[in-house]
Amino acid sequence: MVPNPPISLAQGDDLIIGGRRFHSRLFTGTGKYPSMEVMQQSIKRSACEMVTVAVRRVQAVAAGHAGLMEAIDWTRIWMLPNTAGCTNAEEAVRVARLGRELAKLAGQEDNTFVKLEVIPDGRHLLPDPIGTLQAAEQLVNEGFTVLPYINADPLLAKHLEDAGCATVMPLGSPIGSGQGLNNAANIALIIENASVPVVVDAGIGVPSEAAQALEMGADAVLVNSAIALARNPAAMAEAMGQAVIAGRTAFCAGRLPRREEASASSPTTGLVSS
Amino acid sequence: MVPNPPISLAQGDDLIIGGRRFHSRLFTGTGKYPSMEVMQQSIKRSACEMVTVAVRRVQAVAAGHAGLMEAIDWTRIWMLPNTAGCTNAEEAVRVARLGRELAKLAGQEDNTFVKLEVIPDGRHLLPDPIGTLQAAEQLVNEGFTVLPYINADPLLAKHLEDAGCATVMPLGSPIGSGQGLNNAANIALIIENASVPVVVDAGIGVPSEAAQALEMGADAVLVNSAIALARNPAAMAEAMGQAVIAGRTAFCAGRLPRREEASASSPTTGLVSS
Amino acid sequence: MVPNPPISLAQGDDLIIGGRRFHSRLFTGTGKYPSMEVMQQSIKRSACEMVTVAVRRVQAVAAGHAGLMEAIDWTRIWMLPNTAGCTNAEEAVRVARLGRELAKLAGQEDNTFVKLEVIPDGRHLLPDPIGTLQAAEQLVNEGFTVLPYINADPLLAKHLEDAGCATVMPLGSPIGSGQGLNNAANIALIIENASVPVVVDAGIGVPSEAAQALEMGADAVLVNSAIALARNPAAMAEAMGQAVIAGRTAFCAGRLPRREEASASSPTTGLVSS
Amino acid sequence: MVPNPPISLAQGDDLIIGGRRFHSRLFTGTGKYPSMEVMQQSIKRSACEMVTVAVRRVQAVAAGHAGLMEAIDWTRIWMLPNTAGCTNAEEAVRVARLGRELAKLAGQEDNTFVKLEVIPDGRHLLPDPIGTLQAAEQLVNEGFTVLPYINADPLLAKHLEDAGCATVMPLGSPIGSGQGLNNAANIALIIENASVPVVVDAGIGVPSEAAQALEMGADAVLVNSAIALARNPAAMAEAMGQAVIAGRTAFCAGRLPRREEASASSPTTGLVSS
Repeated sequence: MVPNPPISLAQGDDLIIGGRRFHSRLFTGTGKYPSMEVMQQSIKRSACEMVTVAVRRVQAVAAGHAGLMEAIDWTRIWMLPNTAGCTNAEEAVRVARLGRELAKLAGQEDNTFVKLEVIPDGRHLLPDPIGTLQAAEQLVNEGFTVLPYINADPLLAKHLEDAGCATVMPLGSPIGSGQGLNNAANIALIIENASVPVVVDAGIGVPSEAAQALEMGADAVLVNSAIALARNPAAMAEAMGQAVIAGRTAFCAGRLPRREEASASSPTTGLVSS
Repeated sequence: MVPNPPISLAQGDDLIIGGRRFHSRLFTGTGKYPSMEVMQQSIKRSACEMVTVAVRRVQAVAAGHAGLMEAIDWTRIWMLPNTAGCTNAEEAVRVARLGRELAKLAGQEDNTFVKLEVIPDGRHLLPDPIGTLQAAEQLVNEGFTVLPYINADPLLAKHLEDAGCATVMPLGSPIGSGQGLNNAANIALIIENASVPVVVDAGIGVPSEAAQALEMGADAVLVNSAIALARNPAAMAEAMGQAVIAGRTAFCAGRLPRREEASASSPTTGLVSS
Repeated sequence: MVPNPPISLAQGDDLIIGGRRFHSRLFTGTGKYPSMEVMQQSIKRSACEMVTVAVRRVQAVAAGHAGLMEAIDWTRIWMLPNTAGCTNAEEAVRVARLGRELAKLAGQEDNTFVKLEVIPDGRHLLPDPIGTLQAAEQLVNEGFTVLPYINADPLLAKHLEDAGCATVMPLGSPIGSGQGLNNAANIALIIENASVPVVVDAGIGVPSEAAQALEMGADAVLVNSAIALARNPAAMAEAMGQAVIAGRTAFCAGRLPRREEASASSPTTGLVSS
Repeated sequence: MVPNPPISLAQGDDLIIGGRRFHSRLFTGTGKYPSMEVMQQSIKRSACEMVTVAVRRVQAVAAGHAGLMEAIDWTRIWMLPNTAGCTNAEEAVRVARLGRELAKLAGQEDNTFVKLEVIPDGRHLLPDPIGTLQAAEQLVNEGFTVLPYINADPLLAKHLEDAGCATVMPLGSPIGSGQGLNNAANIALIIENASVPVVVDAGIGVPSEAAQALEMGADAVLVNSAIALARNPAAMAEAMGQAVIAGRTAFCAGRLPRREEASASSPTTGLVSS
């Protein structure tokens, strides 16, 4: 979605998804952190307001997930339950419903958000366009606010938007790879065509890549591995938060045109001999 | 220069050039702004502490340069006189001396800094390695703190360092082109080998590219056109300042390794059936 | 598909699609040529053996399509009817059937090939994953040899393969854009996973990009605009043919590993003083 | 050098260096081959006419260099002695003189060619711009036909041309790294400005990268590691030869313009309903 940039950021440049307003355009996750404490610090220093949670991992009290629900202050952080580990639409719908219960347990009675992941392949972790669309249609019908994770396919994004999804979440590169925006050209087309917010998810490895997504006009980014697996996760979280603000500010400020040739900062015309 | 990153940024992560300490790792310029007022706002919002000034343009009171000296608060901003417009070593040495006088006029008695530009070619504005080295040797002998603008050539950088330059300033892409870090691989080699600070100069078009330079280990960046020619220069200046902080923080935080393959944020091992 | 490369190319390294054997791994088209004569020369010099034809354009005797059927020697060139201009599955199925008739008219009684294009959007000309899969299933049922044109989505490619398609044809970048392989990372994943031939279609602008696709392990490429719109189409056709052979040969020859660092061609160990 | 492309390649599109005419625009090397036999086959299948030889390695009868002089048919292959292993101008000049003797021993009485390498750094193997220029001036004075190996610096290239060098040989990426044309933007500027042939040397890993250099307007490429270290060197040599021809043909044929947007191969205007 290429919004009409606000005259002034001071007038408010919030992101609205499913009727809910967010100041921060950075979403983070809960996986892969060395400890709960590091996760807590990282979430805090990122200044994010939405954190995704793998419903199945929490249900299973999988490694690194014990105490997760208690570790986050759900009065400040909006929960984005995700369907990680689901290989088909049916499973994803079932896990999304469990996610709704999880959000209620966290005190978010009105939270209908779900990050929809339908990932048949355990190696490359790429989403299934057909299963994702099918699950999205079902979940929208059930009243969910659906944020589907997709390959950067502009036509698939359009189908999901038409099906009533609240955003589209194209991937930059495979989950956890830190390869950055391999699909930048397609993401640009998605942004150009979408009338829902576009959230770049997966593949971002460093703050510059997060900033790049925002500069292109993406509405937000979701970053997990790049923070959790940094040498200093909390510092990296802060850097990601800064970069997202920088990228959004730059998008609204309007970049200089790229030029084929150089152009002097200090033109030489009008020079007198020194 | 790949520094041993400080344990904590709070302990101080200042940039030291020629014995002088800078908090900000963003340098800006004075060319191409739509007005003096916009330049003033931009410098302020960028939070930079060093601004480069084209000595010949000021001497000539060229278009956009009337009142420049008075427009900047030289008690807060360190002047970096530059030799833009000089096509050979001799001219550059002469203009560097004038720059020293200019700094004195601004009340900076001890300012010996000069951004050395020897640019024979008015079209691509690329620096001459031979003339630059020659002028650098002369200026170091005369007691200048020399910051030479160079093509991203690791061996030339070494020669300049050996000649006593205070930094090296490799270009990302041609001046004013906004093409970003076309020479990233060479810049990385310069950073790896240098024992003086490396300042990426020219070609940066958006904050993400500034952040990228810092993430790679560059010590600072100089940005002029990307700010001055943005639709909203002052907002872009702020974004550049944020991105430089984000990039430096990320460099110190240590990025996750790039991976050939995906890696689940929420591993599927240990899942129970939902 | 990453084949076990043949011990020797001399033993035959033909491409087999739908049971039919092709020596050349370059497919070309019939659109956008300045004249029929130039098209004829270009097809000849490319040494291609399969040419795609826009069925609707031929039916409509659209500009540049009068005499097209007679201009090509269908005893040597295999016709690949395409469904360009179809915006949904239903239309595409209908046009595919017309294509079969067209091939019969050209004397290719047993030609069941169809290049399936379902493109709702007239601007970016990107394929619809849902409509394409739906049409592919129908056409496979009707006995067609289906070569679907798709966005570079590895999971969609898998669905189409499972549906019985004879190849998958991921796009490098938008049709006619000449931007090259923007989606290279995804194309690599498709190649890794596919057990049908992978044909890179659309976006190739120069021979090096065609060679790159083959080097990555793609089985063939389809090139139209880059030939037809070159200043000298016939010469460019020849260059494309050469590049495809070079790329395939290189793939089978096995490239040297990429290295982070330099490695001397002429090691300096063992040197005596000169 | 951007030549006025010949009307027809059939009229002759030879490369002329130092007054000598070459049909092939691929130069190869003699280092790193698994055996003399493989080297011989590779040179033959590459169809190259100029092969570079490390003078110091031959003098020292270093590993892999015994019998080298006898292994190549110097009545067909032009020797390009190189100064690999020289760390300063003085050494390089001395070794160049030895190279001249070596060429005489091979029966090439009039061979004054030298590939000038001045490489102080044994790790990244990057050339020294200052030492290279100094040695080049000396060698030109002594009547050598000098082909200097340089970092892709347009201004340095100009200095070397002015000094009387017969070509400039900018590197794509570090020797043996197979990273391709990291410096493409700078190489393009060198080509645009040069009036001597531009030979891209070092870093080429696959045929597509060789083709890319020629498509950009480079006059030739030198490839060693990518052939010698391929799994099947002789097949890779053939592929390189093909790709160089393809790239040159494409350069002369004139590529289609890159477009921001798609452009239908089969325009939909004028369609009748099917």
